[in-house]
Amino acid sequence: MACRGACCCGCGAVNEDNARFIMLLLLIILYLLCGAAVFSALEHPKERQAKEKWVQRFELFSQKYNLNRSDLEKFLRHYEEANMAGIRVDTLRPRWDFTGAFYFVGTVVSTIGFGMTTPATVGGKIFLIFYGLIGCAATILFFNLFLERMITVLAFVLKSCHEVQRRRKGVLPHDSRQDSSNARLNSKDSLAGWKPSVYCVMLILCVAAIIISCCASAMYSSIEGWGYLDSLYFCFVAFSTIGFGDMVSTQRASYENQTIYRIGNFFFILMGVCCIYSLFNVISIVIKQVLNWLLKRLKIPCHHCPGRSLRLRRNAVMPSHVRTRVRNISIDTDAVNDSETDGRRMSGEMISMRDFLAANKVNLAIMQKQLSETANGHPRSCGSTNRHNGFSGGVGALGIMNNRLAETSVD
Amino acid sequence: MACRGACCCGCGAVNEDNARFIMLLLLIILYLLCGAAVFSALEHPKERQAKEKWVQRFELFSQKYNLNRSDLEKFLRHYEEANMAGIRVDTLRPRWDFTGAFYFVGTVVSTIGFGMTTPATVGGKIFLIFYGLIGCAATILFFNLFLERMITVLAFVLKSCHEVQRRRKGVLPHDSRQDSSNARLNSKDSLAGWKPSVYCVMLILCVAAIIISCCASAMYSSIEGWGYLDSLYFCFVAFSTIGFGDMVSTQRASYENQTIYRIGNFFFILMGVCCIYSLFNVISIVIKQVLNWLLKRLKIPCHHCPGRSLRLRRNAVMPSHVRTRVRNISIDTDAVNDSETDGRRMSGEMISMRDFLAANKVNLAIMQKQLSETANGHPRSCGSTNRHNGFSGGVGALGIMNNRLAETSVD
Repeated sequence: MACRGACCCGCGAVNEDNARFIMLLLLIILYLLCGAAVFSALEHPKERQAKEKWVQRFELFSQKYNLNRSDLEKFLRHYEEANMAGIRVDTLRPRWDFTGAFYFVGTVVSTIGFGMTTPATVGGKIFLIFYGLIGCAATILFFNLFLERMITVLAFVLKSCHEVQRRRKGVLPHDSRQDSSNARLNSKDSLAGWKPSVYCVMLILCVAAIIISCCASAMYSSIEGWGYLDSLYFCFVAFSTIGFGDMVSTQRASYENQTIYRIGNFFFILMGVCCIYSLFNVISIVIKQVLNWLLKRLKIPCHHCPGRSLRLRRNAVMPSHVRTRVRNISIDTDAVNDSETDGRRMSGEMISMRDFLAANKVNLAIMQKQLSETANGHPRSCGSTNRHNGFSGGVGALGIMNNRLAETSVD
Repeated sequence: MACRGACCCGCGAVNEDNARFIMLLLLIILYLLCGAAVFSALEHPKERQAKEKWVQRFELFSQKYNLNRSDLEKFLRHYEEANMAGIRVDTLRPRWDFTGAFYFVGTVVSTIGFGMTTPATVGGKIFLIFYGLIGCAATILFFNLFLERMITVLAFVLKSCHEVQRRRKGVLPHDSRQDSSNARLNSKDSLAGWKPSVYCVMLILCVAAIIISCCASAMYSSIEGWGYLDSLYFCFVAFSTIGFGDMVSTQRASYENQTIYRIGNFFFILMGVCCIYSLFNVISIVIKQVLNWLLKRLKIPCHHCPGRSLRLRRNAVMPSHVRTRVRNISIDTDAVNDSETDGRRMSGEMISMRDFLAANKVNLAIMQKQLSETANGHPRSCGSTNRHNGFSGGVGALGIMNNRLAETSVD
């Protein structure tokens, strides 16, 4: 199992999985450094201004009332303490009545953590640790199930659209060696195995996130009195579960239509968080593809067997003349004749009959081997055959564990 | 694709996937309500105390210096404003120098979002939205790849331990109808397909999280001067990416061994977040199993065909007499003869030869069907056969998309 990502020639030190992981780590650190530089340039002047302004105000106030400097500082420290308990000059909603506590636990399990309310007692802090452990795990599962449900719906809708489009256009132009009925059969087959593009899903999620954010911002800017841009910023910070807490919704002591606003706030945050979580996951797939592309471009040579690159290992099953031409076989990743070329189709180019048969010949050979092995009572060797071909690579959170842990196949 | 989870008799309204999703939603809401009640009971008295204390202090201070009440309130509002820009009475580290900005972007991409530093300029807020979108997605990918790498290592280590244990004990007692060499072959096979238990991985992650938290807390309590329990609370809040911001590390203007402390802080948070993220995902699998168990206990009857429960649908491929007895066939989820019974083995009971052959007969039948279909040029029907059996259900974030989206099979 551990040798899954290892190089075919036995040098396991630098394999593709490790290379991808390290590359991502380095890119993230680079990204952080660039981000730090930009934010520092953008925000540093404002910080200095704010500091000067505060020093002036402090001096003015202490001079006006002839205050003892250290006394005033002590008073402000007391105010900081009160702030931590959720007290401001302007009365806010109570922190720990039932609705306030409900808002608080909502920010805990979703990991938003605005911090407008935080436990102050020892009991509360200890309870939070155990409560959060189960709550956050349950919410991650909820987000994942939401993602699954949503992709199912999207796939269904997109498939219907695709079907309607194809019916309007008529069947695609087919190979001259195939007769018409065969082509129609194939076109129906290709629809059965049709999957929506990751870019298409990303676009739809992006549009959904923008619509939700804009609607929510309209609500917040009208009710809280924030600027529209500030509201959009709040929406992103809340929906992405960053939750700085510099702006928090429904914090005033009272609103017009308070109950409706609170329910609206709850649903907008729920929908927004689900949507942005899904969007992050889809974007992370695209980032993974970019990483794979970069790795392929770099083609890290295998030190023990010069001349062979890592890329060859992944396609060991395909005959070499098929490798470059097979473009449009969209075979399910969970099927027997799982093909990695699936992800590489970029044009609408149809597969020629010769290549198709060549590919099938390989698949047939694998299947016959598996069949005989199963008949001989060694069912597990099928799994290992697949694994050594690098075809069983599950990506992502639970998906990884689904491939690697025994109990996960309950589903 | 959309009909994957649909009931076999055509009533798609309540299927198992939707039932699980709705059940989880209801359970989370119940969990939130209970949590809100407990936190409200724990924290409400303290809040009232803090409020009374502050009112007293405010009165005392304004009486002592004979201050105009509204003037003092205005001054405190100015202080709140300064607070938002990261200014306190006691000098803190600069917010927006390069290291401060680096800490800030770290809390953004990890979605911790302490909120000790927040962008105040319009440019900063707009940049944050786009920066966070890519950054958070990249970090989610990083966490997922970390999880994958870690499970690979854990599986390798656990497998080695398992192997050593078995070698000490000798091979397991085998069925009387099998000869000795066959049994040894089978035992070797079962090791090849051996996967670590999800509970075992959960335990290891739990221990790792506790060790990291305890070490980090020791560091924080000695350097920041926090109590040990407070430090543990900070560790949980930071590592789970909740990030209230009521306690934030490395905020003072200067420390002894400042650089070492900052680097230590960075690595502890990185390791902690990775570890707790993995733990959450493993716990969420256990929660999913509990949900499945609950659903099975409830056995939601199918309204259109009374007497048939949803459970039967999932096992349609297995002959009925096998269903209850097959316990110990650990077949990979990615293999052809994928078996859902895998997850249900609870005892060490070995499969009898008769059941094994019966199970294989079904698998053989499926494979022969697939084989002939592949030979006839309908490769996609294999995928749909698998899907209609409910065997292709990928769980979790990218895993789901790996099954459902075309481009994800690049891996």
